[in-house]
Amino acid sequence: MTEVRKRRESDGKLLESAESDHIDSEDDRFKSDADLSNTIPSGTDKAPGVLEWLVKDLPDKWRNWAVRAIFSLIMIIFFSLVIYGGPLALMITTLVVQVKCFQEIINIGYAVYMIHGLPWFRSLSWYFLLTSNYFFYGESLIDYFGVLINRTDGLPFLVAYHRFISFSLYCVGFVWFVLSLVKKYYMKQFSLFAWTHLALFIVVTQSYLIIKNIFDGLIWFIVPVSMIICNDIMAYVFGFFFGKTPLIKLSPKKTWEGFIGGGVSTVFFGLGISYVMCQYPYFVCPIEYSEALGRITMECEPSSLFRLQAYNVPTWMKWLNMFGVGSTVHLYPFMLHSLSLSLFSSIIGPFGGFFASGFKRAFKIKDFGDVIPGHGGIMDRFDCQFLMATFVNVYISSFIQTDSPQKLLSQILYLKPEQQLQLFYLLEDSLQNRNMFNAAN
Amino acid sequence: MTEVRKRRESDGKLLESAESDHIDSEDDRFKSDADLSNTIPSGTDKAPGVLEWLVKDLPDKWRNWAVRAIFSLIMIIFFSLVIYGGPLALMITTLVVQVKCFQEIINIGYAVYMIHGLPWFRSLSWYFLLTSNYFFYGESLIDYFGVLINRTDGLPFLVAYHRFISFSLYCVGFVWFVLSLVKKYYMKQFSLFAWTHLALFIVVTQSYLIIKNIFDGLIWFIVPVSMIICNDIMAYVFGFFFGKTPLIKLSPKKTWEGFIGGGVSTVFFGLGISYVMCQYPYFVCPIEYSEALGRITMECEPSSLFRLQAYNVPTWMKWLNMFGVGSTVHLYPFMLHSLSLSLFSSIIGPFGGFFASGFKRAFKIKDFGDVIPGHGGIMDRFDCQFLMATFVNVYISSFIQTDSPQKLLSQILYLKPEQQLQLFYLLEDSLQNRNMFNAAN
Repeated sequence: MTEVRKRRESDGKLLESAESDHIDSEDDRFKSDADLSNTIPSGTDKAPGVLEWLVKDLPDKWRNWAVRAIFSLIMIIFFSLVIYGGPLALMITTLVVQVKCFQEIINIGYAVYMIHGLPWFRSLSWYFLLTSNYFFYGESLIDYFGVLINRTDGLPFLVAYHRFISFSLYCVGFVWFVLSLVKKYYMKQFSLFAWTHLALFIVVTQSYLIIKNIFDGLIWFIVPVSMIICNDIMAYVFGFFFGKTPLIKLSPKKTWEGFIGGGVSTVFFGLGISYVMCQYPYFVCPIEYSEALGRITMECEPSSLFRLQAYNVPTWMKWLNMFGVGSTVHLYPFMLHSLSLSLFSSIIGPFGGFFASGFKRAFKIKDFGDVIPGHGGIMDRFDCQFLMATFVNVYISSFIQTDSPQKLLSQILYLKPEQQLQLFYLLEDSLQNRNMFNAAN
Repeated sequence: MTEVRKRRESDGKLLESAESDHIDSEDDRFKSDADLSNTIPSGTDKAPGVLEWLVKDLPDKWRNWAVRAIFSLIMIIFFSLVIYGGPLALMITTLVVQVKCFQEIINIGYAVYMIHGLPWFRSLSWYFLLTSNYFFYGESLIDYFGVLINRTDGLPFLVAYHRFISFSLYCVGFVWFVLSLVKKYYMKQFSLFAWTHLALFIVVTQSYLIIKNIFDGLIWFIVPVSMIICNDIMAYVFGFFFGKTPLIKLSPKKTWEGFIGGGVSTVFFGLGISYVMCQYPYFVCPIEYSEALGRITMECEPSSLFRLQAYNVPTWMKWLNMFGVGSTVHLYPFMLHSLSLSLFSSIIGPFGGFFASGFKRAFKIKDFGDVIPGHGGIMDRFDCQFLMATFVNVYISSFIQTDSPQKLLSQILYLKPEQQLQLFYLLEDSLQNRNMFNAAN
């Protein structure tokens, strides 16, 4: 391999001196490995300052372990603080993480396609990031605070024409891109355009769904996210101590022992954390704008999901008797849902990680960045989270709630007055035909 | 350039004989031009059979013109027949066009990345096409026929769990992709994965929006689509006869004369066709499932958009007097909206075409396919239609209707009975507080 590259490189230099305007042409589109690793900040095992001194005497394997563990702990503490800070802090953190992930993906694109000569391409990427965030965040703000925004002077047009404004902004970017095309760089420009859009697709839609999940109650955010963290850590721990059988070629360090150990731990962890969180309205209440109070509230009468219910222990689980479990157990129904979440996070979740591994291998980089010592970039830590947000969102809309009366009412209030009346009478007829007024009394 | 390629090619052969397992490595990722044009069926000026005989004596420039004109006519006739066939025929045609466009884009991807060794990648692409169509078409079918589907035995679970089923199908594809990764091909596989997703993004979402527009009334489909066709043809005609000033480097054949001539023609064409279509309920009525009739209807009392209204001619347009236009004119309000549509289709629409031109140049292909003699592939004819469907959809939702009472009612009927009652009383209170019952009487 090295020999080939050397030959090619010397060949490249020959060409370079012979026909200098072809340097950037199709065949040199990709940098060699050496170049790439210079441009993308790759993760390092070196720990900063004080920490470096603390772990300096440990053997290599343990030293990596220690740095990684310490920074896992730091991240978990940070995460808990953010949760303590409330939904707004969470949303801002989500936004920051999103921007950082986007930056890491885009930076790899820049490095791969060596686009130094075209400075406005960077602007275009960020412009598209802004546009799509404007669109997606706008959509959820309108869903939840539409009534409030409509009452503020000068803002109602933002609600009424939100999609039109977003689409116009996108069109500006699109036209800008087309006008920016330069003959010499067509291929690179289209590749980076595609790269940007896929990064948006992965990063922005996921963070939008995360925000939506937060609105349904903090528990829908905290439980899945911490399940993935738990699965990551426990798979690492099990793999570290018991790992023998390789799981998938893509990630040679992953083992079946880690996969299974992580999965089982996640199921128990999920049941435990759900049991604890179900007891606090702070975690289980949806975040709503209360018209009556004139502010955002997180207080509610917890729905039946979060109220203890008696379940009969099925016959095939009678052996639980020996642990002092009777014939009925009291559980929060949410705990049963947590089983689906933990199964997804430990079976499908890791594939997000494999996907990211494959991606890194394809572009011959070690990590997405070097923000977190011992871990790499933000993307390296969030790779398994990606499908999870979509899963939770789809899960909620399929199995938990369809639409809430409150939300539909706010949609009705957007109708013209005469349409509101029309709907009222349509609904009245429908309810009367089904005899539901009597049934209620 | 040729010299460089020759040198590289001979170099390539050298390498090939020296280290055969590197043939498929990074640097050979892209075929040379000659290879590509062999693999992708490119448009031809040759006409089939009878037609060839008809145009054989014409000089080259006119011959191309004739073939193109005849096939434009054939397409317009076909298009009219489909419209005559009704909404179902239109939707099926949209689906066929969508699949064909997807195939053309994907074929280019295959040719570019030479993926012959990995047969299941083709299956994966089609699988993702199926999955996303299942998701998007399902979403609109549920929107419009949810009540009907819910009444059919065995189908309600498809409605209730639609998103969950779609997401599960997607996850299967995702896992399948990850498991299909082969070390030698990482880069190609990820590139094609990205390619497939972008093709889906462009093709499937647009055709979904087109279907949605059709449901809002055929006029929202026919007017924009024929505007783009008119703009294409008239820009070609004006460019052919008067074209002098080049418009954009990307498409050397496009001229300012064609751009402006096409634009002005489109505005007048749009006003004309709107005036005609506004008179027929067949074109202006939304397509709805009538519970009372138990079937799909396209009959309605046309909304105010499609009823003649008197407008005062503004002072600065008084010169229209000399054409016999009085101080008031009778217009359908839709005609004013048609101005926005025609402006978009003649100003932004062509950028879809430029984008496609640039794309073709980037990958050094002449056309997307060879289905339509004189025109190239389906994608070559539909390139300007793409942003249009989104524009119309966004335009309708921003300026024409928000939600219809009928549609909201069907959403309400998904709620649990007690929630339906709760909503009823909430709405009653809200209407009473705003004194709207009295105002209506």
